[in-house]
Amino acid sequence: MKIHDLTRTLKTDNGSKIVMVVSDGLGGLPMEPGGPTELEAAQTPNMDDLVAKNICGLSVPVLPGITPGSGPGHLGLFGYDPLEYTIGRGVLEALGVDMDLGPGDVAARGNFCTVDDEGKITDRRAGRIPTEICVRLVEKLRGIRIEGVELIVEPVREYRFAVIFRGEGLHGEVDDTDPQVTGVPTLAPRARDAASERMAGIAAEFIEQARGILKDDRPANMLTLRGFASRPPVPSMQELYGLRAAAIAVYPMYRGLARLVGMTVLPPVANLEQQIGSLRDNWGSFDFFFVHFKYTDSTGEDGNFEEKVKRIEELDARIPEIAALKPDVLIVTGDHSTPCFHRSHSWHPVPTLLAARMCRPDRATSFGERECLLGGLGQVEAKYLLPLALAHAGRLQKFGA
Amino acid sequence: MKIHDLTRTLKTDNGSKIVMVVSDGLGGLPMEPGGPTELEAAQTPNMDDLVAKNICGLSVPVLPGITPGSGPGHLGLFGYDPLEYTIGRGVLEALGVDMDLGPGDVAARGNFCTVDDEGKITDRRAGRIPTEICVRLVEKLRGIRIEGVELIVEPVREYRFAVIFRGEGLHGEVDDTDPQVTGVPTLAPRARDAASERMAGIAAEFIEQARGILKDDRPANMLTLRGFASRPPVPSMQELYGLRAAAIAVYPMYRGLARLVGMTVLPPVANLEQQIGSLRDNWGSFDFFFVHFKYTDSTGEDGNFEEKVKRIEELDARIPEIAALKPDVLIVTGDHSTPCFHRSHSWHPVPTLLAARMCRPDRATSFGERECLLGGLGQVEAKYLLPLALAHAGRLQKFGA
Repeated sequence: MKIHDLTRTLKTDNGSKIVMVVSDGLGGLPMEPGGPTELEAAQTPNMDDLVAKNICGLSVPVLPGITPGSGPGHLGLFGYDPLEYTIGRGVLEALGVDMDLGPGDVAARGNFCTVDDEGKITDRRAGRIPTEICVRLVEKLRGIRIEGVELIVEPVREYRFAVIFRGEGLHGEVDDTDPQVTGVPTLAPRARDAASERMAGIAAEFIEQARGILKDDRPANMLTLRGFASRPPVPSMQELYGLRAAAIAVYPMYRGLARLVGMTVLPPVANLEQQIGSLRDNWGSFDFFFVHFKYTDSTGEDGNFEEKVKRIEELDARIPEIAALKPDVLIVTGDHSTPCFHRSHSWHPVPTLLAARMCRPDRATSFGERECLLGGLGQVEAKYLLPLALAHAGRLQKFGA
Repeated sequence: MKIHDLTRTLKTDNGSKIVMVVSDGLGGLPMEPGGPTELEAAQTPNMDDLVAKNICGLSVPVLPGITPGSGPGHLGLFGYDPLEYTIGRGVLEALGVDMDLGPGDVAARGNFCTVDDEGKITDRRAGRIPTEICVRLVEKLRGIRIEGVELIVEPVREYRFAVIFRGEGLHGEVDDTDPQVTGVPTLAPRARDAASERMAGIAAEFIEQARGILKDDRPANMLTLRGFASRPPVPSMQELYGLRAAAIAVYPMYRGLARLVGMTVLPPVANLEQQIGSLRDNWGSFDFFFVHFKYTDSTGEDGNFEEKVKRIEELDARIPEIAALKPDVLIVTGDHSTPCFHRSHSWHPVPTLLAARMCRPDRATSFGERECLLGGLGQVEAKYLLPLALAHAGRLQKFGA
């Protein structure tokens, strides 16, 4: 029996409300030995107060030592084992430009590239054409017609686009057509299993039509497709946890990840202030709110310690507005760490606080990586945070007699 | 490979002795913010001394956020994954009145109820008849005879009784006959799988004979059966761990749970003093002793903080008598938390101490929830406490070369 078998049968609806604030890439590292992390350096009186009165700890996104991308990072926080539910690259690319995937859809990432007269690749990224040209070329690709399949193509950025294949009997086990080197032709899309033969044939047809459409464009006179993937079959948060869940995110990829697990995606807004406005406006209609804050990740990727500290302080300053709504459970965590020192996602566990009336007190008094080691949550796999939230919200009945 | 595959092959018998004291519902919560938990408020010089010299931590009964009943709570402590070995309601009810279940037995909970002339339920609990009447009615039910099946019926309390069906080819996947509402007849017992068809037929026959036997009784002129369940197939502690295990418990349910995992159940005694007497008397005959102390749970369920504190102190005062027997490993833990604040079982991890010569010291100096966060056991799933006990007792060999 797995945890989802438990939550399916033990879930109950007592009308309580849970808010999960995901500060993307929250965890950090000191820039020099002996220094503070970003979160330790930030002035966070509101989160410190929550930690002092409640419980904190560290969330392990996947497993010790494993650095997650945004997909597994968020699936864990939504209560899904990221090793059981995996999201293909194509699907993530499509979600990132706000495309809506249906259950049988296959998505792929596309690159415009340059080929010579013999069809051999001379530039795998077509000289990194500007996004405007990408948009114009994608418009042309929309002219492709394949019997029995709906095609949805969207530009991403520069030479990158995303495509969704929609139709009966499509499966995403298809090899990339990008050979990863120049001087050779693009590869044929080859199925890795019998069920994906139809998809491979359709991809080949798509590529052939595209070859004709693009042949006179320079430098982008050809394309490759990578990361074919079916939409993963994910049971909804309603089904697993009995939660009417809503996502409030500025960036499309996070809205897409939320859509995958069956959340209602609230209309896009521009910043944290508006996100909290949306939270307030929709307070009565949902049980669970996922509030995504991007900038602790992007400043981490930039290696900009001061700016990440400021962004953490910006988040902290908004916490009282969330607390004023009196959620039964308020969690602040991240999908992974993005230390400025590392300028990239990392495997380090993520500082996490959980505030609720039934918290058992610990000895931590402020929100920071070292202090979280004293916390009552301990070091806990991210996938257990949602069951813990449900427990503290009174939404899980007793297991067994 | 699972942990039982390891313990089966690595177990060895060096004559060492392990005592596990289970203080039921031991873990708690402060009654008001900033206050102590029950265990923190209690004066426990003996357990504090054990913690200071040995190791402590927190036991997670099932998984983070999951509140266990007594069944899964104890199975975990006995070293069984409570998600793999589940105990049906009927089985637990039968164990609770000291009935002995064989491997192929099916048990069910029974309710006496009241039906009108058309057979429609007017009271699902027959006006909560006193236990004396229940005893008399159960005596009548013992007159039921069904070809090829042995029936064992025992009163529980008020309108409740338990029944065991013993015979060839019985399986417990049978629906409840209690419709959970009044104004409708009782339901027929329906098999959920082919293997349980025979059991469903026997249950129907039992109910028909009971209808005739009870028809002139008021208000209890009918019955319903619920929670049909087979005895779960559980390998014994002897087989898994090489332990001759004994249970010393005042209450029948805990003796029953111990019997399920193959422990020898020592004769019932009335209190902790007598339990320790029994421990002393049987010291030479067993390797592992399960000593169950109920009152930290019942006072928690009552919400009686002062009384739970006293009960913890009562337990603490007896610890030297146990220590005087010089067990190689002494564990004090609980099957779950029962905070007085919550008046019910909860998901919070349980303070646990383990005393043995080979303990690696930690920095904890007293027995309490906050202090256990400093302990060397960390937060550990309950099912690993027994392997840890075996290790500290020198009863597990090296895995691999």
